[in-house]
Amino acid sequence: MSSERAALIVARAEELAGLSEEVGALTRRYGSQALLDALALAERWMREAGLATRRDAIGNLIGRLEGERPGLPALALGSHLDTVRDAGRWDGPLGVLLAIDQAAARSGAGDSADACPSADAGPSADAGRRRALPFALEAVVFADEEGLRFPTAYLGSHVWAGRWDAAELALTDADGVTLEAAIRAMGGDPARVGEGARNPGELLGWCEAHIEQGTRLERAGLPLAVVTTIQGQSRCTATFRGQAGHAGTTAMDARRDALLAAAEWALGVEAKGLAGDGLVATVGRLSVEPGAVNVIPGVAVASLDLRHPDDATRHAAVASLAALAQAIAASRGVTVDWAQHTDNAAVAFSPRLQELLGQAVEETTGSAAPRLASGAGHDAAPLSRSTDVSMLFVRCKGGISHNPAESVSGDDVAAAVAAVDRFVDLLAAAERSIARE
Amino acid sequence: MSSERAALIVARAEELAGLSEEVGALTRRYGSQALLDALALAERWMREAGLATRRDAIGNLIGRLEGERPGLPALALGSHLDTVRDAGRWDGPLGVLLAIDQAAARSGAGDSADACPSADAGPSADAGRRRALPFALEAVVFADEEGLRFPTAYLGSHVWAGRWDAAELALTDADGVTLEAAIRAMGGDPARVGEGARNPGELLGWCEAHIEQGTRLERAGLPLAVVTTIQGQSRCTATFRGQAGHAGTTAMDARRDALLAAAEWALGVEAKGLAGDGLVATVGRLSVEPGAVNVIPGVAVASLDLRHPDDATRHAAVASLAALAQAIAASRGVTVDWAQHTDNAAVAFSPRLQELLGQAVEETTGSAAPRLASGAGHDAAPLSRSTDVSMLFVRCKGGISHNPAESVSGDDVAAAVAAVDRFVDLLAAAERSIARE
Repeated sequence: MSSERAALIVARAEELAGLSEEVGALTRRYGSQALLDALALAERWMREAGLATRRDAIGNLIGRLEGERPGLPALALGSHLDTVRDAGRWDGPLGVLLAIDQAAARSGAGDSADACPSADAGPSADAGRRRALPFALEAVVFADEEGLRFPTAYLGSHVWAGRWDAAELALTDADGVTLEAAIRAMGGDPARVGEGARNPGELLGWCEAHIEQGTRLERAGLPLAVVTTIQGQSRCTATFRGQAGHAGTTAMDARRDALLAAAEWALGVEAKGLAGDGLVATVGRLSVEPGAVNVIPGVAVASLDLRHPDDATRHAAVASLAALAQAIAASRGVTVDWAQHTDNAAVAFSPRLQELLGQAVEETTGSAAPRLASGAGHDAAPLSRSTDVSMLFVRCKGGISHNPAESVSGDDVAAAVAAVDRFVDLLAAAERSIARE
Repeated sequence: MSSERAALIVARAEELAGLSEEVGALTRRYGSQALLDALALAERWMREAGLATRRDAIGNLIGRLEGERPGLPALALGSHLDTVRDAGRWDGPLGVLLAIDQAAARSGAGDSADACPSADAGPSADAGRRRALPFALEAVVFADEEGLRFPTAYLGSHVWAGRWDAAELALTDADGVTLEAAIRAMGGDPARVGEGARNPGELLGWCEAHIEQGTRLERAGLPLAVVTTIQGQSRCTATFRGQAGHAGTTAMDARRDALLAAAEWALGVEAKGLAGDGLVATVGRLSVEPGAVNVIPGVAVASLDLRHPDDATRHAAVASLAALAQAIAASRGVTVDWAQHTDNAAVAFSPRLQELLGQAVEETTGSAAPRLASGAGHDAAPLSRSTDVSMLFVRCKGGISHNPAESVSGDDVAAAVAAVDRFVDLLAAAERSIARE
């Protein structure tokens, strides 16, 4: 039953949360003993679930359950076990534990250990789930998603997508330790990292369950959503330059105050975001020079983070906000330098997998699944270059993530268990239907 | 002639500007050899002007010209020769050099050296200026006005005003040098600093000529103004606390962005200042936490510097801006902590000296003198506690000060020379009139 399977997932998430580099906070960086311990635990659970496990040279852990015959393309389910600093217990582990749960449910091997079938479990349903699939299942733990230690992110999925660059071996962490040394600490072979790339024919697709990290599901009163895309992202810097001056002697109408220009622009950025077409726009950094109580600010540097599911809409918004900065600056006798640092395209999620996931959620929850764009990046972004990708969002309390207060209810985990069950069934039926055609 | 006397003042300002602690920048801190050199030069000029010089224990330099009989109360003219870092040549030296010029003109002793009377100088005018005054004249160089080195300002005039506190001897500069050691370096005796206090009966009043450090005279096309007060000043800090969050996943309408609250408030501060009743209001500091491009600001700390000639108006403005911060915070689901650090009352300038200065400016320039409140602090603030104070503002280019670009025209220096001549004459006539009554 999905509630018992969910209880096991909740217990396992708690067990993983005890594995940390730090006392009193959950932190697992790539290459740390804490991450190795978490991977060893996940590998034990995979084996108990009847999966054949292996690790590639970057340290990705893969548990495989063959389908009707060996060597079929795999539906890969999973997430990551590395964390941010002082993390919560669900960002990553939720997708990993749901993947192991799904594989266990399909192999049946796990039932005898932790998740004994209860008396009222319909034997036909269990038997149905254990019938071999027309594809392999892989439960995947990517070795480094958060990029906390090295100046890189999605390291594990980059390797899968064939985007590994050996020059990255020389990257160093804050203590000067190279990525090469960290790969060895993970038990990997730095010279063979590139061999972890997956041949497109090996994969049927990717599906990751993840906490929403937002409040849209909570506000809608629903447990699950289908992710439509990872929003494209622009990052820019607006540097306003006015004239520093004496706060007591400079008349109000003779000032060229850089901070006020930046403040007016930041409110314009907010207004653009609130205009309602799905844009999220944030001024996260603002610094002022000289930054003295009694000196009119001469320089103000403001950052912009802008995201939207549609790249053209996002590009138009960037142009509009750059023009707004110029107009505000001009009206205040201030200049503005505009720099764009990042222009990441939106990620194309598989329409087919979205459709099947949506059907699965609707059938198991009784409500149509909201379609949500992801504001945060995930391994699906690099993976989308080599296979069909999909994600299932699970409601989290208050939208809080990257924080010890991350919280997912047992009922919502159970809803996810049931939805993934149904999704795999639907995909199996669809694959068989294609095979018959 | 005032133009020749002005030329000498311009030349002496240039000579003083060559005395610096730093190569390529003008900096003279209290206790530095550069300041000692500048004081030695000023003392030489005073002696050449026929003044009897002395230094008190804090290092203030006083040159005295007796009046009709020895020991009369003195009209003290002067300013300071310490500077800010990378200073201009006029903030301080202008008032010192005009004071020495005035004393020289009254004693006649300086004429034979640098400022030979020209052929077309009316001998009766010169003779008139040299007639003994019904008060003494003192040319004063305060030893430390800017407070660049130690956490104190107006040190020299505090001593004059009897506000010296021996506990300040333990104050240290950035290198750990005590004020006590710096006083010894100035040639002073730390144990006798308090003896520098001036008995109120010793002084008739204080008059300081100073660059305006603003653009009101420049915009009015006039060289001189009479100062009415030093504005009172409030300093406050508003700390806005919202909720940090993910810039990609947090919906625009679910945010509690501390920076946007601070930005809206900073624009409200500006609007209050622009409302036109003479208030100057500045947000000079704004810092944001966590200050990451992709994180919604959870905390924003903004400073407020608020000045007005009328204390009640200033207090009402502080209350109004505190209420505005609360209202903005409440409308955004943010809290605000309000702290007031400074509440300096406006300085009462002598109505009598203002009146005489205004008459002198009008008679010598042919235009009524603007009455201006000083936005910056000056030695007149502490001195106002023990004697009548007045100040004459001289137009400076672009309002620029505390900057190597400080600039005063020779014509405006000449206008100041003539106005001070006339001011001393008018004060002498007024004193004689009182004596006759």
